[in-house]
Amino acid sequence: MCQLLGMNANTPTDLMFSFTGFSTRAEEHKDGFGIAFFEGAGTRLFVDAQSARLSPVAEMIRHYPIRSHNVIAHIRKATQGVVALENTHPFVRELWGRYWVFAHNGDLKDYQPRLHAAFRPVGSTDSERAFCWLMQELSKAHADLPPVGELTATLAELVPRVAAHGSFNFMLSNGQALWAHCSTKLSWLVREHPFRKARLQDEDMSVDFAELTTTADRVAVVVTEPLTADEAWRAFAPGELKVFVNGGVVER
Amino acid sequence: MCQLLGMNANTPTDLMFSFTGFSTRAEEHKDGFGIAFFEGAGTRLFVDAQSARLSPVAEMIRHYPIRSHNVIAHIRKATQGVVALENTHPFVRELWGRYWVFAHNGDLKDYQPRLHAAFRPVGSTDSERAFCWLMQELSKAHADLPPVGELTATLAELVPRVAAHGSFNFMLSNGQALWAHCSTKLSWLVREHPFRKARLQDEDMSVDFAELTTTADRVAVVVTEPLTADEAWRAFAPGELKVFVNGGVVER
Repeated sequence: MCQLLGMNANTPTDLMFSFTGFSTRAEEHKDGFGIAFFEGAGTRLFVDAQSARLSPVAEMIRHYPIRSHNVIAHIRKATQGVVALENTHPFVRELWGRYWVFAHNGDLKDYQPRLHAAFRPVGSTDSERAFCWLMQELSKAHADLPPVGELTATLAELVPRVAAHGSFNFMLSNGQALWAHCSTKLSWLVREHPFRKARLQDEDMSVDFAELTTTADRVAVVVTEPLTADEAWRAFAPGELKVFVNGGVVER
Repeated sequence: MCQLLGMNANTPTDLMFSFTGFSTRAEEHKDGFGIAFFEGAGTRLFVDAQSARLSPVAEMIRHYPIRSHNVIAHIRKATQGVVALENTHPFVRELWGRYWVFAHNGDLKDYQPRLHAAFRPVGSTDSERAFCWLMQELSKAHADLPPVGELTATLAELVPRVAAHGSFNFMLSNGQALWAHCSTKLSWLVREHPFRKARLQDEDMSVDFAELTTTADRVAVVVTEPLTADEAWRAFAPGELKVFVNGGVVER
């Protein structure tokens, strides 16, 4: 299985601390990694078919503070599709004049959705097929970009149709919101005032968020397995879809 | 004006030497840079709204040998659209299950094409509008990915309709071929056996390609202004569209 990491913040925030902890796990997930940062409507996507432990691209990301409102990262252990750049998550497509970024952890069995519209997979993964199908169905459901609440309602109808085929933990963002869906395993927390220290689960590294933040800052982090040892991570329920905006969870 | 650099090779080739020379020119073209590498059907796109002289991303690219058959790079001096990541070339879209990469140097006046289909601009540049229109018209002209020759014939019909609006030097690749169109300024060469030494025009740096290549290697390079002082660059004619496959120019 792969691992997912997502961030949604109300102020541009760098992910260096969390990405350091996350990429430690790449030893067992050596079939590539990827990370997409939104900066306004623009995205930067860094992908490498090498392990995030070894990749010079990952090394740069651990040291270059790219500040973003929305980030999605993925480390891959191939289940379907060869190890190749075109099969490396996150995937990006454009819809309604916005970029959409998607990463998946799970395995969809015999999943061959009807893709008859403008979104077709470049690689050979179940994940990219699922993303293309979601984009296709979103584009059919709305003529133009609707508010986040309407997008969430549409996704809540679409997602179970994919999840019926297997495990479908995913993260999706269009730069306005972060949607996270759990089939089997996903945890989340919100960091906000008063900020504290946190220590990485897998590395001997701590950070005192109080030194790096203002009292108004708020950051939601979603991840396959909790990144820190001393924070109150909460587990998603199976089948749960959450949406994060401005660093907080939006109640539906 | 911006500057363009494209490469098409018959064997995966790194662009470190050429990119070093090219990014030297970023002093006058400080409004961001971008470079897209195809690896098979996959792409890596690195973009930064900082100058390629200063960007840590550009620094990594000058030292990390990413080998590719097709590369498009761009350094930007903004004429239309603010300096922002979403306005930074190259742009990427998916069509017929392949990624398409596009970068433009020039200025299209009052260019507002009718975009009624699945390709819409995310940023606010004339360049991205032109790319979306080309993608839209290609998708209408062919039901599925046609051979390179047919794509070239369709592009040869479409491109003058955009170029009528201003200067339209561009590079386009889908990982199979590199198309380059000149309105005002573009040069090209093919490096092949017997390989020689070459010295960068803008930096005190030489390379002996004979030491780095096999006799079968062939690499086409297309650029706004010749990169080296001692190679036989050839200028495009205004209005000329060339297509490069396997490191050589395809005669039409």
